[in-house]
Parts: sequence; structure tokens; C-alpha cells
Amino acid sequence: MCGTDSPDAAGPVSNGSHASKANPASSPYQNVNDFISNVARFKIIESTLREGEQFANAFFDTETKIKIAKALPVSSPQSYEDCKTICGLGLKAKILTHVRCNMEDAKKAVECGVDGVDLVIGTSSFLQKYSHGKSIAIIKETALEVIQYVKSQGVEVRFSSEDSFRSDLVDLLTLYKAVDQAGVNRVGVADTVGGATPRMVYDLIRTLRGVVSCDIETHFHDDTGCAVANAHSALEAGATHIDTSVLGIGERNGITPLGALMARMVVTAPDYVINKYNLKALKEVEELVASAVQINIPFNNPITGFCAFTHKAGIHAKAILANPSTYEIIDPAIFGLTRYISINSRITGWNAIRARCEQLGLKMTDDEVKEVTAKIKQMADIRPLAIDDTDSILHSYHIELQKKQALQV
Amino acid sequence: MCGTDSPDAAGPVSNGSHASKANPASSPYQNVNDFISNVARFKIIESTLREGEQFANAFFDTETKIKIAKALPVSSPQSYEDCKTICGLGLKAKILTHVRCNMEDAKKAVECGVDGVDLVIGTSSFLQKYSHGKSIAIIKETALEVIQYVKSQGVEVRFSSEDSFRSDLVDLLTLYKAVDQAGVNRVGVADTVGGATPRMVYDLIRTLRGVVSCDIETHFHDDTGCAVANAHSALEAGATHIDTSVLGIGERNGITPLGALMARMVVTAPDYVINKYNLKALKEVEELVASAVQINIPFNNPITGFCAFTHKAGIHAKAILANPSTYEIIDPAIFGLTRYISINSRITGWNAIRARCEQLGLKMTDDEVKEVTAKIKQMADIRPLAIDDTDSILHSYHIELQKKQALQV
Repeated sequence: MCGTDSPDAAGPVSNGSHASKANPASSPYQNVNDFISNVARFKIIESTLREGEQFANAFFDTETKIKIAKALPVSSPQSYEDCKTICGLGLKAKILTHVRCNMEDAKKAVECGVDGVDLVIGTSSFLQKYSHGKSIAIIKETALEVIQYVKSQGVEVRFSSEDSFRSDLVDLLTLYKAVDQAGVNRVGVADTVGGATPRMVYDLIRTLRGVVSCDIETHFHDDTGCAVANAHSALEAGATHIDTSVLGIGERNGITPLGALMARMVVTAPDYVINKYNLKALKEVEELVASAVQINIPFNNPITGFCAFTHKAGIHAKAILANPSTYEIIDPAIFGLTRYISINSRITGWNAIRARCEQLGLKMTDDEVKEVTAKIKQMADIRPLAIDDTDSILHSYHIELQKKQALQV
Repeated sequence: MCGTDSPDAAGPVSNGSHASKANPASSPYQNVNDFISNVARFKIIESTLREGEQFANAFFDTETKIKIAKALPVSSPQSYEDCKTICGLGLKAKILTHVRCNMEDAKKAVECGVDGVDLVIGTSSFLQKYSHGKSIAIIKETALEVIQYVKSQGVEVRFSSEDSFRSDLVDLLTLYKAVDQAGVNRVGVADTVGGATPRMVYDLIRTLRGVVSCDIETHFHDDTGCAVANAHSALEAGATHIDTSVLGIGERNGITPLGALMARMVVTAPDYVINKYNLKALKEVEELVASAVQINIPFNNPITGFCAFTHKAGIHAKAILANPSTYEIIDPAIFGLTRYISINSRITGWNAIRARCEQLGLKMTDDEVKEVTAKIKQMADIRPLAIDDTDSILHSYHIELQKKQALQV
């Protein structure tokens, strides 16, 4: 099972004028320099082909994996072969593999030719009792042996606890300190069951930041809907890396979704995100993965949900027409997308209708626009209107107006 | 446009032993009494028929509104009539209406016979400039007049700013203090553009908690994926009410979803949530609303997403079989749902296969189970397996075993 670490994948620079206005540097909440926060220098661990294969519907054949990987060892013979194939692609990303913390798994991983090995072991009392049955002392001893072996092979190594937020704090800090001193490149903190809150995350990562000198990777499941916010909170506290998968696919309802995290971070740190990532590629990779695992992109998906940039209420549409930033925190153009102002509903307003009349080239006075808006709202009370229904009403009202004017002349 | 305030809607008590184990009272992060936090005494403002109608696909006829409202006043003539109808239903919830902060709208709302009027006005520089064009001084003067009128009619009144997190902090606090002193029942804080983070929310609500004595309602859009976490953070800081809609439907990609918030809060405050809400009704109301607005329930929806309680990785399934809490923060039974352990994939493990053999009544030794597990992983490497494919492999392997044994005897 593999992931790609793409710290250096630079994308084309996009127009950031809109998002830049949201720069929190100008907010009353963050107006001092925060030397610990990594919100403007984070890295992504793309885990679609590792965590993502734990998603109920996922079955990635080699071709699909390579397709996704041109973007990512050993849970089956084919996974092992796939990993070797992907390592041979010469991608611009580091290839990492995720294995249980024992010598046998570590050796197989190194044989694949990966750039790095992620060692993982459960540290919660639940996992100690019901999964591997090992004490913290044994975990520490094994981890140090395996780390020494992987380092001796010239391969990067990360050590991660599983279910970190239900583990004993002193056990966790003891383990992390030991593996940091043993020279791991990175330690990982995982909310394996998706129960952590942003404040818990901030507190634990901030404490850990004072204990280890290596990088800190974080992994958040979304069972309680906090996976994006928890990732943001971890970066504020000093974490360096965030695990994501495309659309968040993973075990149960998944992990921090790449797209939603990009939405969050482009608001928090617009310059960093826009200069580093090719945000216009998001929609396509989401569609590729959605198709591969036979799911629909959720209606409420940030950025690419079908209505993410649709403005409907009249009071909103009026202001959006005057200045999009009024009701948008993100400019859809950054992601290569466009906004849509819905006018065919009973909660539309006359400003939106006036804008539509201008688009259609229908000249009317404000009073006339208000009159036809009332007609549209009345119609929309009876049944849902399609955009061309609304246009038909506007055209026929305009013809009536012209007839009246002809009679008056 | 209506909402229901359902502080007193009690549901049947469900088995909470599993979720209770996750009580943060036993966590090192929250082991002192927090007298400000309202995580265990929050109230929900159900806004599906107000915010929800701003969702792109939403068109609720009166019948549908009543259906949902047996769960929830004037943006069109029919909305006005619907509001009067709903007020006449005698529901166990308070009926509130959401209007612009001016005398005309407030009078229409009061005429509907609602229990409460929510006054809303934009306070960000964007909204002051591009929406209503009013200064903070004028907003304050108008608000106080309207509040006095609504109170004189014996109706509850709430005052809310719009786009609170892009408003001037001193302007906000000045306004909230004035309306609190004028006797509003509740002030509202709204992240109208969905750009706030949990720490910004905590800081603003905590500051506001020291300025006003009335209840504090909060409203979070989900443009950057933080609407659930922001709601939780607001409660920790002393907010009393959270706006939700079923599946989060609302303007753009919506607001805090009712179901995801229930998932979050049942982990944070299991006893309060299980005793107060009928959690087993969640799936049905989500299906009703999804059908009314013609959307699919997102694959990654907390609780009711199709794979929210599906366990796939072998290492997970083994531990889940020994004790479900190992990889679950929420017991699906609390929501009237069941878990599913997927065994038909190449990342399955022999413990899950052994459990399936036991369900099927197929007696095998551990070594035999390990051998057939290897066969299943090999098959699953070639093509996706259905559950009955796996069962077929198990049955035929078992028949082979019996033949061999017969020959040996």
C-alpha cells in the first residue's frame, strides 16, 4: 500500500486576487506572527492508493493505480507488484509504503525499492488488548529494531501510532521521543476512529512539537465530520504533513479529502497554496477516482459539488452581482470553475432578474423588472421552473411591454 | 422562511454503553469542569425549510414542508401561507421566522403568528457596501426600533449579524451589546461565507460570551469543510444554539448537517444526546429530504453514508470482531443501524474469514482458514468479488477438505 509525498509538485500559478483578500494576516484573530503554525508551509501525503483501497467500493487494477499514481507494500501479491511498478515510474513524488511495525513487513517494503517506509502500530488500550496484544515496552523495543534496520538500508522511515487520541499521553510521548532520538524522519499521529476535535488535536500536536525535532504527519478519519478542521488545527499547532485521499475515500466514511483541504487552505494561506498546487486539476482527478470506485461526487462537496458556487437567495444574488466576494470566500476561477446565479425560484430577487435581462439584451425600467420578478416568484410558487422557463417569461413580458409602448406611440 | 427550535423534543432512550466509553470526561484533554462549555446542553435550530430552501435543487410544496415540519415566514406569497399553516399545526417546537432587519419585514412576520422573529443584517464591509448600503450607526438605530416593536407584540426576538467573521470586531461587539441591553432573547453569529476556522470561532464566541447575557446562536456554512467542527468549537466557547439542516442543504454547498452534528455530539456528550434526541429517526428524515430535493445521500456522510460502518482492512476486521470499539467511535445500534465486515477484497485478513466460516457453519482449522484466505486474496487481485463469490469459495474449499478427510479415513 503506497502513498506519494509531493512537497515539490509545483503547479501553474493562478489568479489569486480574490482569495488573497481573505488572507488571515489581515484578520483581527491572527495579526501577530505565529512561528509554530505551519498553515503556510504544509505538505500533503496523498494516500488514495493506500487508505483509499480500504474504501468499501475500491478495487484498483494496476492500470487505474498507475493512472491515479502518475499521481502513488504488501497486502496481496498484486499490491506488491503494483508498488514495484509504481516505484519504476520515476514520478516527481516520493513513494512511501505503509506497513505493520515488524521486521518481516519492513523487509518486504524495502525490497520494493520504495523511498520511505511508514511503520504503524496501535497504541490505544483497545488495540493493545484486541489487536496485536503487545505492551508499550515491547512496541518500543520492536520499533527501535525495525527503525535501525530500515535506516541501515538507506531508506527513509516514519513511525506512527494508531488511534493516538485514545492512547495514554505519557506512553505516546515516551514512544515518540525514543523513535525521534533513533533518527526517524517523521512521526505520525492518527485519529484512526475519527473521534478527535480541533482543540484536542491542537493540544496534542502542540505538546508533541515540544518533544520531537522531526517532522509530524497527521491522519484524520471523518466519522464525526471534523477531518478537515482537525487537519487545519494540526498545522496551526506545528504539524508538517497532512494525509489526504481524493474525495477522502478510505476505511468507513474515509479521511481528510484532498479537495476540501485545498478549499480550507486556499482561504487560510492563498499565496502558498495557489503557487504550489495545480488547483485546476482537482475536478478531473476527483472525477477519475469517483469513476474508479463507482461513487457520485457528493452534492455538498466543497469546490466541486454541483452547487458549491450556485447563489440562489435574492438577497445573496444582488450582492454577488455587485461584488462576488460578498458571498464567496473562494473565487471559483482559481479552480477553473464558474459561479452560477439561480433566478428561477420563488426566493429570487429583482436584482438577479435585472442582471439576467441585461444578459438577454431586454431593456426594462427597474419598476418593470420588479413587476416581472413578482410574476416569476408567483409561477415558481406553483412548480419548479427551469432556466428556460424563466427566460420565456422574461421574453414574453418584454414583448408585451413593446406592444404597449407601440400603442402609446 | 421558517425554522424550528426544538429544545424540548425528547426521543426514546437508546443503549449508550458504547458511546459512553468515549466520554471526554475521561480524556486527559478535558478533565476539569468547564463551566462555559455548552457541549452537554446545546440546542438545535432546525433550518431545513429556511436555509434548506436556498439549496439549488430545493422546491418544497406545502405538503412536503408539513411532512418535514412536523419537524419546521415571507419570501413569496406561498411561503407566507405555508408559515401560517405550519404555525397552526401545534407542533412541539417553537416556530421562528428569519427576515431582514427592517420594520416592514418584521410586521409581516409577526402577522404570521410565529413564536419568534430572527432579524438579520450584514455587518461585513462587503455587505455594508454591496448589499444594503447602511452604516453600523444606522444598523444599530434600525435594529433597536424593530426590536422594540417585536417585543411590544409579545413575540420573541433574535438579532443576528451576517458574515460576522469578516466584520469589524468592535462594530460587532457594540451592536450585540446594544441589542442585548434592548432585551433580545438571542444574538446570532453567522459564518455566511464558510471561511471561519474552529479557533477563530472559539475566540469570537468566547469574547462575545463576556459581552452579552442572552443566548448565542451560531450558523456555519461549509465551503471549507469546517461547519461541523466550527459548531462544536462554538459550543465549547459558550454558544447555546446551533443552526442545522437535514443533510446540511442550504445556499451553495450548505451548512452544518444535522446528522454529522449528531455524530460529533454523541461522541462528545453521549448521555445528553442519547437521552434528548431520537437518533433512530435520522436515517428516515435524511431519506425524506434527499428525495424531496432529488439528491443522493453522500457516500461519505457520517452515520448514514453506505459505508460508514463497513470495515474492510484485515487488520481492522480482526480487532472489530474481538471488540467493535477498537475501530469504532460510535455504536451503529444507537442510530438503529448495523456494522458490516467486508471480506471479499484482497486486503481482507484470515480473522475475518474465520468469522465468516463460523457464520456459515463451516468447520476449519486455523491453518485451513489461512490457506483459503490466501485463495480469496488471490482471486480478489484479479477481479472484484461479491459477497456470494467469497461464500462460494469457502463452501467449495470446505467440500474439498471433507473429500480429503473421507479419503484419509
